[in-house]
Amino acid sequence: MGFKPPKGTTDFLPEDMVLREYVINKIKDVFIAYGFECLETPIFEDWDLLTKKCGEEIKKQIFRFKDKAGRELGLRFDLTVGMARVIANNPQLPKPFKRYYIAPVWRYEEITRGRRRQFYQCDIDIVGTKSMEAEVECISCAIDCLKKLGFENINVIINNRKILEGMLELLKVEKEKKLDVFRAIDKIDKFGGSFVKKELKKIGLENFQVEKIIEILNTEGKIEIGRKIFKGIKVAEEGINELKEIYEISKNYGIEKFLKIDFGLARGLDYYTGPIFEIVVGGEEKIGSVAGGGRYDNLIELLGGKPTPATGISLGIERIIEIIKEGRMIKVPKTNVRVFVANIDSASKEAAIKIAQELRKEEISTQTDLMNRNIKKQLEYCNSLGIPFAVIIGKKEMISGIIKVKDLRRGKEFEVKREEIVNFLKVGINS
Amino acid sequence: MGFKPPKGTTDFLPEDMVLREYVINKIKDVFIAYGFECLETPIFEDWDLLTKKCGEEIKKQIFRFKDKAGRELGLRFDLTVGMARVIANNPQLPKPFKRYYIAPVWRYEEITRGRRRQFYQCDIDIVGTKSMEAEVECISCAIDCLKKLGFENINVIINNRKILEGMLELLKVEKEKKLDVFRAIDKIDKFGGSFVKKELKKIGLENFQVEKIIEILNTEGKIEIGRKIFKGIKVAEEGINELKEIYEISKNYGIEKFLKIDFGLARGLDYYTGPIFEIVVGGEEKIGSVAGGGRYDNLIELLGGKPTPATGISLGIERIIEIIKEGRMIKVPKTNVRVFVANIDSASKEAAIKIAQELRKEEISTQTDLMNRNIKKQLEYCNSLGIPFAVIIGKKEMISGIIKVKDLRRGKEFEVKREEIVNFLKVGINS
Repeated sequence: MGFKPPKGTTDFLPEDMVLREYVINKIKDVFIAYGFECLETPIFEDWDLLTKKCGEEIKKQIFRFKDKAGRELGLRFDLTVGMARVIANNPQLPKPFKRYYIAPVWRYEEITRGRRRQFYQCDIDIVGTKSMEAEVECISCAIDCLKKLGFENINVIINNRKILEGMLELLKVEKEKKLDVFRAIDKIDKFGGSFVKKELKKIGLENFQVEKIIEILNTEGKIEIGRKIFKGIKVAEEGINELKEIYEISKNYGIEKFLKIDFGLARGLDYYTGPIFEIVVGGEEKIGSVAGGGRYDNLIELLGGKPTPATGISLGIERIIEIIKEGRMIKVPKTNVRVFVANIDSASKEAAIKIAQELRKEEISTQTDLMNRNIKKQLEYCNSLGIPFAVIIGKKEMISGIIKVKDLRRGKEFEVKREEIVNFLKVGINS
Repeated sequence: MGFKPPKGTTDFLPEDMVLREYVINKIKDVFIAYGFECLETPIFEDWDLLTKKCGEEIKKQIFRFKDKAGRELGLRFDLTVGMARVIANNPQLPKPFKRYYIAPVWRYEEITRGRRRQFYQCDIDIVGTKSMEAEVECISCAIDCLKKLGFENINVIINNRKILEGMLELLKVEKEKKLDVFRAIDKIDKFGGSFVKKELKKIGLENFQVEKIIEILNTEGKIEIGRKIFKGIKVAEEGINELKEIYEISKNYGIEKFLKIDFGLARGLDYYTGPIFEIVVGGEEKIGSVAGGGRYDNLIELLGGKPTPATGISLGIERIIEIIKEGRMIKVPKTNVRVFVANIDSASKEAAIKIAQELRKEEISTQTDLMNRNIKKQLEYCNSLGIPFAVIIGKKEMISGIIKVKDLRRGKEFEVKREEIVNFLKVGINS
């Protein structure tokens, strides 16, 4: 017998957590620096709320259940819906409302490499402003996160749902087909043009419509070219103007060089209404998309709130962690524990604990022996965990006041005065 | 219409999160200093795993559901069961395995003041050692957490399940009634002696047994008294020796003065096997229990692992946050945002963003205007959020290079050279 973690979920052991927490903390630092604040919502929501605007595909993936009173609930599939509900519930919140949230979500998907049913999302949102400054700030913040984590060759692909809508208007595609068409287009990067063609035909588009759509999707992403194609189509012109605005504002942040318009970008979610964006990293090898987002001006009203514009970006944190791990981009230790204070004999136990307690007061992560093991076993444990420093104390050391410190990473040994131990290690662990 | 958070759950707005994160981070710092490492497990587990040793009461409270493949699952009701499963699954992990975890759990309980159906637990556990040093380290760590949060009058109540078992042996209570009796005894603090008497009679105990139990529970918690009562009852003697050992070891940590034996302490959970403890704070007013734990040497084997001793303590973090809030023990700001860079006119927008970006590089949480508001509106927003500093820049400031900084908490205003802004605020926000 023996129980495993439920299918599609993973346990993260301490050595996995070192990297995960490193990445999450770096990102969180940037979010906070940009003035975003944390908002926490429950992990489950009303079924009706969750399914209001998620689309059929995601609806099928929600973990659904009833509480004891028979309420229909579901585990959240993203962090946006809960946040939008909070805004709807709390009209008193000052605007713009800038929030970040890094937390798990759940989707019952096929388990492929790197895809799990419980995974983290990592979002920032700016609520309450129609200004494209919000888009640029989100994008700038995401770029800074990626830079801080050591990513290079960052490209921000942008488009606008209004341009895609304009395209459908231009080609006289029925409004009801809009979302299906967007979802089909969204797959062009993953599955290619001929797949999308087939999908569009399945939706019921005429051949000429399909051909023209593919042509537009592949058009070079230039403002002037867009203006030509969509001349006279008001909604598309609005969309193009917004992209132009984003480009102009982005100069203030020094990030204009990262932006690339792509009329083929669609994004999968139903609730986008304006600019949409995706961040890809890697040059030739094209590691792929690591962030995405867009404007969703109708969602909060739809969930019962006052009409409230909003935009946001989500960092694909599981993918980011995977890339960092595969590429060994960041060197993280196996453990966060820095020091092990070993005692040679039971008489020096008390002295060992005293040293450990002093180190702990200085927030140096420290362990001592808890199993009454001999010194050899203690040091073996120390090595198996990857703790970099061992302090060794015995009768001799207690008498002389000179204590041995082993730097296990470098295989060096030092003799340190008892009263200088804490400072010695403070310096040592940071070198 | 309008959706609320599901019954029994709460949204935490940014101003709630400031205190929550402050408390969680302080506790986490102490956990890490003590050499505990984070282990993360999924929020749901197999129904059979969860209900293996949780007891009938909790079993009824588990949020239960099936995934799409029909697997019976449940939201975790504590953090221990998942951890124990991981240990069972990963025998290669070096021992002692010291882990912390601060994360939400779910129980469908009656909603009373301060009790919710989604709430955080905050645990440390030491796995793989039988030594009472593990108990002492957990208790010492918990005391340091509470001290760091400003708690005074800390008392650690300790007892041992082995003593309680010895008591039942002494009184010839049937073994099958053991857990029911412990659960009844556990309520003595909350509901008093006569309530417990009634409960014990309900379980089927004889009058003389009930009277004797109540007498022992109320006996002064002294090692020598215990030895007298339980003379010849092996299991109880073992339990008393363990308490004695805890007391001796605790001297090494300088925490012996916090310990108080109480033969009436039982704790509710089924899986305890040895020393059990509870931490209470507050003197006369007795604010109540803020932490609890104990040894559970059989749980890991029960979940399919090798026999592995373990002990741990759980800080009642929701209760701790509540007490801190009610008592205003810690002064936390309304927001973590430190600076708002306001622009007087649109010409100074770019300059405002530049300053903001410099502050953000220094990890100073900074916002700028994102709604094209006039300066008055910008400062109103700044006040409504509780941001302590406003930097104000307009054409005049751009020409002179002298920029206005408002300290909104103290109602003071400063004129600062452009190039000194960042350093000025770095010092200012920490004063």
